[in-house]
Amino acid sequence: MRTHYSNETGTELIGSEIILCGWVQRRRDHGGVIFLDLRDREGLIQIVVDPSQEEAFALAEQVRSEYVLRVRGPLRARPAGSENPDIASGAVELQAVAIEVLNRSEPLPFPLDEDGISENLRLKYRYLDLRRPEMAGRLRLRHQVNRYLRRYLDERGFVDVETPILTRSTPEGARDYLVPSRTQPGHFFALPQSPQIFKQLLMVGGLERYYQITRCFRDEDLRADRQPEFTQVDIEASFVDEAAVMAIAEPMIRGLFRELLDVDLGDPFPRMPYAEAIRRYGVDRPDLRNPLELTELTDLARTVEFKVFRAAAELPQGRVACLRVPGGADLSRTQIDAYTEFAAIYGAKGLAWIKINALDGGSEGLQSPIVKFLPETFLQEMLQRSGAQVGDILFFGADRAKIVNETLGNLRNRVAADRGLLEGGWRAVWITDFPMFEYDDQEDRWVSTHHPFTAPQEGSLGLLQSHPEKALARAYDLVLNGNEIGGGSIRIHRREVQEQVFAALGIDPEEARDKFGFLLDALSYGAPPHGGLAFGLDRLVMLMSGADTIRDVIAFPKTQKAGCLLTDAPNRVAERQLRELGIRLRPGVLDDGQAS
Amino acid sequence: MRTHYSNETGTELIGSEIILCGWVQRRRDHGGVIFLDLRDREGLIQIVVDPSQEEAFALAEQVRSEYVLRVRGPLRARPAGSENPDIASGAVELQAVAIEVLNRSEPLPFPLDEDGISENLRLKYRYLDLRRPEMAGRLRLRHQVNRYLRRYLDERGFVDVETPILTRSTPEGARDYLVPSRTQPGHFFALPQSPQIFKQLLMVGGLERYYQITRCFRDEDLRADRQPEFTQVDIEASFVDEAAVMAIAEPMIRGLFRELLDVDLGDPFPRMPYAEAIRRYGVDRPDLRNPLELTELTDLARTVEFKVFRAAAELPQGRVACLRVPGGADLSRTQIDAYTEFAAIYGAKGLAWIKINALDGGSEGLQSPIVKFLPETFLQEMLQRSGAQVGDILFFGADRAKIVNETLGNLRNRVAADRGLLEGGWRAVWITDFPMFEYDDQEDRWVSTHHPFTAPQEGSLGLLQSHPEKALARAYDLVLNGNEIGGGSIRIHRREVQEQVFAALGIDPEEARDKFGFLLDALSYGAPPHGGLAFGLDRLVMLMSGADTIRDVIAFPKTQKAGCLLTDAPNRVAERQLRELGIRLRPGVLDDGQAS
Repeated sequence: MRTHYSNETGTELIGSEIILCGWVQRRRDHGGVIFLDLRDREGLIQIVVDPSQEEAFALAEQVRSEYVLRVRGPLRARPAGSENPDIASGAVELQAVAIEVLNRSEPLPFPLDEDGISENLRLKYRYLDLRRPEMAGRLRLRHQVNRYLRRYLDERGFVDVETPILTRSTPEGARDYLVPSRTQPGHFFALPQSPQIFKQLLMVGGLERYYQITRCFRDEDLRADRQPEFTQVDIEASFVDEAAVMAIAEPMIRGLFRELLDVDLGDPFPRMPYAEAIRRYGVDRPDLRNPLELTELTDLARTVEFKVFRAAAELPQGRVACLRVPGGADLSRTQIDAYTEFAAIYGAKGLAWIKINALDGGSEGLQSPIVKFLPETFLQEMLQRSGAQVGDILFFGADRAKIVNETLGNLRNRVAADRGLLEGGWRAVWITDFPMFEYDDQEDRWVSTHHPFTAPQEGSLGLLQSHPEKALARAYDLVLNGNEIGGGSIRIHRREVQEQVFAALGIDPEEARDKFGFLLDALSYGAPPHGGLAFGLDRLVMLMSGADTIRDVIAFPKTQKAGCLLTDAPNRVAERQLRELGIRLRPGVLDDGQAS
Repeated sequence: MRTHYSNETGTELIGSEIILCGWVQRRRDHGGVIFLDLRDREGLIQIVVDPSQEEAFALAEQVRSEYVLRVRGPLRARPAGSENPDIASGAVELQAVAIEVLNRSEPLPFPLDEDGISENLRLKYRYLDLRRPEMAGRLRLRHQVNRYLRRYLDERGFVDVETPILTRSTPEGARDYLVPSRTQPGHFFALPQSPQIFKQLLMVGGLERYYQITRCFRDEDLRADRQPEFTQVDIEASFVDEAAVMAIAEPMIRGLFRELLDVDLGDPFPRMPYAEAIRRYGVDRPDLRNPLELTELTDLARTVEFKVFRAAAELPQGRVACLRVPGGADLSRTQIDAYTEFAAIYGAKGLAWIKINALDGGSEGLQSPIVKFLPETFLQEMLQRSGAQVGDILFFGADRAKIVNETLGNLRNRVAADRGLLEGGWRAVWITDFPMFEYDDQEDRWVSTHHPFTAPQEGSLGLLQSHPEKALARAYDLVLNGNEIGGGSIRIHRREVQEQVFAALGIDPEEARDKFGFLLDALSYGAPPHGGLAFGLDRLVMLMSGADTIRDVIAFPKTQKAGCLLTDAPNRVAERQLRELGIRLRPGVLDDGQAS
């Protein structure tokens, strides 16, 4: 229907008759002539409709914003001085000879060229929101990312294999979305939280190199920036160790940023053991653009009388540490109070602090409510370890390590943001040597830090039962600017090791057989050593595009309440549909009893 | 862990020490030496273990089929006369210096090198089935198809956009898979039967060119070769008509076959209106390799006394036709009886036939139980129209057109297969000018032949209400060797036309508003003309690979009962999971009451 896109109108076409299609971005009447800015997906072009073209002019007079037009006419140079260097077609304009109104448009519920439209309105009319160049650009960037990743993996012999969406509900993960089976009433499929087991089975099947860019599902409460369905770039290979997996993934991410953003992420990415990340940053996904670090004080705190510190240091899983904020002595009481409230979110019972007014006066130079409880030796060692300078402030955490780490780790990010301490650019880091297990206080048992199929490190095999807290996993995460963008592990490929890990997780042999029997069987028939990793595509594209939320890089996202404002999903269904599935609603689930 | 794949062992490497990883395909002990056929995903290579390598030899003695090995040693030329030209590494062998057993294997439940293993066993141990080169090859062909299609569409500016899997249940289609919402109890997501509405919304959103290779879901009874989840290559464009869509899709399919199979599908593909296909072949997906055609006799049959023919011809939707089988007069009574039974499957009450023993003797030359009921004029015209020759047989259908078409259309395929009449090669054809609607006898109303968003042809707008049976759609299917491999349409882009089509389908305005309000709204805000099509990837790859069923081109397919024999999905879930979702099982759904 068109001969060209708006941006294909180089000056060499001047004098040629062309046909364009698109949307009316704006209409102006000026000096008896109508000017239309016509928008297609590649940009804008100016259409001039002269009254001498009677039919076209009459149509142009009825045209409103977002009408869809097909316009024919010669391309001509814009009058000198009226060029628009901001758009590709800015040197030319189309002189309309014929106009066809392909569709009309009601006035839009919100203007396309304004910022600050409420997200709910944007989501309800997502098809209008996507007309905004910013949003269209994000979808196209996402496609470019996809293309780059596929090409990279294709070229290296990875085979794209589709794994099932209708699969088996498995324990040991987040909550599953369930799909009732009609042919086997009372039985349910689950939507996959990841293709984990299937990709392992493909390795047992001898595929050796697999990838898939695929949808995953978790029925979680969406407090953070999450979606019920999200996209994973899933990679697995056989006959590999950690270094081999990183040697596949790292150049891929480096190349991606170089090619699409012209950004150099460095080579190689630094590697940091989990324990070091926790010690220095309190979190396992440290933002290395943030220069602030924690200082370990647990050993020192055991030597003091001050009960808050000593009691924490003497807990089996206790920690005392401080966060040094250079120049932070200028913080007001009000600001410190705000940080104390922030700390409380993560379970801290308070937020002790010391301002460094002078270094040579002993405790005299230190301003703090707690300094009087701390001996000089402690204070000197603390100053030395933290490298504190005059004008700094130290914030303290003293509690169970988990609380200290979360408090100071998040405070570190908050303070750096507030004080503009973040360096520019991009900082990638591999986090390695994760613990196999972490203790789940609610369930009162050990659970997998990654998942139960992660291989233990060679030296940790003997610790699985005796000292699960010390067992290390062959797992790794890739962290970029404080975001975990990918992670994976070498998997267990020997049946007896898998059984030991199930046992360490408190899964008895019968239960293991019942839930994971097919995997255990598969490990018995010549499973090769294998491992891999997965990237979260939504988050990766969000970071690359500078979007604030993953919703802005998903064409049709769900709200935080897991609903779709556009289609109004989920919705009620007919009683007949439920009957066919052998299910019914629980009494009282719907107020009006409909479909119940 | 390896230096080379098995097929990367050219003679230039002879003398070099290399490392290989793979599976033991076979072990032979010969003259005190152990020979191992080591398999990796690229092929086989012979490993020779000499007793002089004591440690390696001791390990090799314990090795069984499907053990996973890492083998190191120099590559050497095979002794003259023992080369194997069938494999890439056939000129060389690896002389093992060190062997590492990476994993052991239990004896397999079925041998990998035998055909005729029951499909249920193959599906239960799919990871073993996938080790067979035939199956691995199909997965890799599928990936090649994927790559080709993506590259083709990428190069033409189509943008890959992911649409939701958790979406809204819509009527007017097959049965939906439902997903109970936990956050909105009593409400359900549906898994998409296709991304139809979302791709249209992307067009309204100005994306102009979209594609996606995506999973679709239909909860149907799987009589034919279908799967509950299947993969669709989904393409949509704005500012296009039928010719433009075909000009995108046709070279894509032609190029795909040329590049991957070295097959020439012809250029252009022929186009055939739906009505012609039905008239000549009885079906809308004719296999053009089959030379048999139907002969129209309805008009003639109205002139005869013979009640079976006349009554059928006088039905409002009646048809009388015959299928000429050249040389078919040799069919025995038993064979004809078998075809009569076959015809009954499609609702035929019988299968009249006439054998042509001579052409010049009038009805004397015709052998048939019905010939005595038919006047000479009918017989002569019948012979002329059908082009019957001595030695042929004619099979007759006389009933409602639907039954006649299905009976003779399927009989045509069956007879051609039985008699080896199918020509070799590939025959593609576009079927066009589909009817907008077909009458659903069960629901006693008009339903869409394609879907309710298909645009009517220009001349059919006025027929939507008055003569729905005559309205033609802007729809097209691509048929290859009798398989519908793709289909699509130009969509409705004007709200008022969409409302008229809903009305013709008996959907009243309130219901339309309730179920499709968001689409109607979208059409009000400058929806561009648009259309597209979708290919069934599973069937396409099945045809290309010569597989008998789509299950053979899906890594982890479901059975005909929609279950997964490998993971045993669907399965029972915990009562707690159902409670969270606000649902319960209907009484009696499970025998033992578990989870109910």
